Amino acid sequence: MIFKIDHTDKETKARAGEITTAHGKIQTPIFMPVGTRGTVKAVHQHELKEEVKAQIILGNTYHLYLKPGMDVIEKAGGLHKFIGWDLPLLTDSGGFQIFSLADERRQSQPGAKPVRKITEEGVKFNADTDGSIHFFSPENTIDIQRTIGADIIMAFDECTPYPCEYEYAKNSMGMTHRWLKRCITQFNKTEGKYGYAQDLFPIVQGSVYKDLRIQSAEFVASQNCEGNAIGGLSVGEAQEEMFGMTEVVCSILPKEKPRYLMGVGKPEQLLECIALGIDMFDCVMPTRNARNGMLFTSQGTISIRNAKYKDDFSPIDPEGTSFVDNAYSRAYLRHLNFADEMLASMIASVHNLAFYARLMREAREQIVAGTFREWKNKMVKQTEQRL
Amino acid sequence: MIFKIDHTDKETKARAGEITTAHGKIQTPIFMPVGTRGTVKAVHQHELKEEVKAQIILGNTYHLYLKPGMDVIEKAGGLHKFIGWDLPLLTDSGGFQIFSLADERRQSQPGAKPVRKITEEGVKFNADTDGSIHFFSPENTIDIQRTIGADIIMAFDECTPYPCEYEYAKNSMGMTHRWLKRCITQFNKTEGKYGYAQDLFPIVQGSVYKDLRIQSAEFVASQNCEGNAIGGLSVGEAQEEMFGMTEVVCSILPKEKPRYLMGVGKPEQLLECIALGIDMFDCVMPTRNARNGMLFTSQGTISIRNAKYKDDFSPIDPEGTSFVDNAYSRAYLRHLNFADEMLASMIASVHNLAFYARLMREAREQIVAGTFREWKNKMVKQTEQRL
Repeated sequence: MIFKIDHTDKETKARAGEITTAHGKIQTPIFMPVGTRGTVKAVHQHELKEEVKAQIILGNTYHLYLKPGMDVIEKAGGLHKFIGWDLPLLTDSGGFQIFSLADERRQSQPGAKPVRKITEEGVKFNADTDGSIHFFSPENTIDIQRTIGADIIMAFDECTPYPCEYEYAKNSMGMTHRWLKRCITQFNKTEGKYGYAQDLFPIVQGSVYKDLRIQSAEFVASQNCEGNAIGGLSVGEAQEEMFGMTEVVCSILPKEKPRYLMGVGKPEQLLECIALGIDMFDCVMPTRNARNGMLFTSQGTISIRNAKYKDDFSPIDPEGTSFVDNAYSRAYLRHLNFADEMLASMIASVHNLAFYARLMREAREQIVAGTFREWKNKMVKQTEQRL
Repeated sequence: MIFKIDHTDKETKARAGEITTAHGKIQTPIFMPVGTRGTVKAVHQHELKEEVKAQIILGNTYHLYLKPGMDVIEKAGGLHKFIGWDLPLLTDSGGFQIFSLADERRQSQPGAKPVRKITEEGVKFNADTDGSIHFFSPENTIDIQRTIGADIIMAFDECTPYPCEYEYAKNSMGMTHRWLKRCITQFNKTEGKYGYAQDLFPIVQGSVYKDLRIQSAEFVASQNCEGNAIGGLSVGEAQEEMFGMTEVVCSILPKEKPRYLMGVGKPEQLLECIALGIDMFDCVMPTRNARNGMLFTSQGTISIRNAKYKDDFSPIDPEGTSFVDNAYSRAYLRHLNFADEMLASMIASVHNLAFYARLMREAREQIVAGTFREWKNKMVKQTEQRL
């Protein structure tokens, strides 16, 4: 993997870069649509390429390991071939899902007793799908990600919840660091199964504690991986805490490697974090909100279920770049949403992802032109006013 | 509306024709995808045009009247503009839905007391959506269909269930005929709201009673409408009865007008009915079955959930004509189906509709080439063997 920085902003820490992987180039800053189960929900692969202009998408180790299972993915020749996607892929290690899905089940099914036993060795858990018992370790999550075959794979970590006691966060971070060493060892002992190289990104943890974040960022930086990620944010903490932690960590993570902020976020949060030096983002927000009828537009965020759109036959977004903005009206999308028709999710998902992708392209252009800060401040203000 | 017959088969009653409407031409025999609520489920409008090569789609009066309501559709300038579809449209009158949805509710909600009061004047019913009370008559269903603005609109009829007592069927048919006269009167008293002409098709009823079907076909034929439909079949009767009734009715309905068999059916049934002189079909089968993982292919009908497709990385249909057959494998589609992902329905719906459309194009080519009967018999035999 090669990371080339084309431009560095003079007024902020923003950078315009380019990552080269075995499956092609990624222009940064980049937003990566989330395709948890090997599909970005409600969007065809060719729509991701042609309409969203996605340059990389995510898959999830936890979900793909359970369904369709590694035997199928290996026989297919890896996830790229299995899903019909020849551009770059990134897989999350599954750590986050083991923790968040168990919590979700505890809340939604009061009687449920999800297994989640964390030891130094790894995590024993039961699948949210059928309750079957599984064990994830630094070693086997690397093996699984070798089988999935994404261009960028993630270290196995414990993603601490929010709020989190200092002592828990500190001990957890220590274990995440020891797990990282084991991930790197396993990664170096193995190689890509399908004839191309993969790269491993470690993950900075430390909850909302500045000293822990500093320690973690220094440890992660010292591992000298090809790129670095920041995890455990956007999990419930105040936005200012998220920005604060991101700033501290970015100041330590090496400039010459891409920085990936996991699970963030709203459009204006992306812009602020680009200013802090982040290059890569992923988040379910554009697709999940799309399915709930919430649309990101050049005129602000709207809920298509609002009565005022009942007979609004104007485009979803007059400045929208994807075909759905030309093909369909707000009133039609509102009708489809109320009628619970799949086409509602299909239209809104393409629209929202195209909005995010365009925002990142525009951010890149502004960085290159040296006008990023002014533009970012105007955009963030507009969005805040309109949200 | 102009109906031109290009070729009449010498060995069967099959015809290759062309219907010209205000929104373009339709080559017959034609299968019309069902877009009940103004969307063919899980399929984008441009996919209907470019991948399915649909020349006409259906909307439903009952559903569109309830949601989004006539005020919205009228403000939009009709259904074509509302949904972004500039090719021909046909609307069912809603009679079938009033009857079938009330029965479905009675079965699925044992406590439910759906209102369905049929009088000479019309039908009082409550909406399946919110229980609100409505009244449909021959006159107002014509008015509603004027507002929807489909190129072809249907007379308001009573669709008798199966089985149906002779006396009930006879009386019901009599009322459907009287309603037809009122539909035609209302149709002639009104005109298209959006600057183009619409055409009204009457519907032959009579359950599975040959003498009633003859009476009804003669009555309908005598009204001299631009096309004629056969209703009340494929509602539970044996396939041979359906073919028998279709044959009797086709022998009476005028040759020079298109004949539309409503709600039919499986691929081999379409071919048999083309041989009996049918020109137009609609059915939810290709889209509904798609959502259940049932696929119509050149190698027969398959359930993608079958274990044998787990690691079958071949195309859904090697002879498939739509992009989904190149883009995705059977194993991937199976995974998406089990993972309950929308993309499963999206892929299978495009595939099945493209299969139906191609079958109709091929039937037309065979009619024109004078080889229809032999080809049809081979196709039907193949399908029966493989189903």
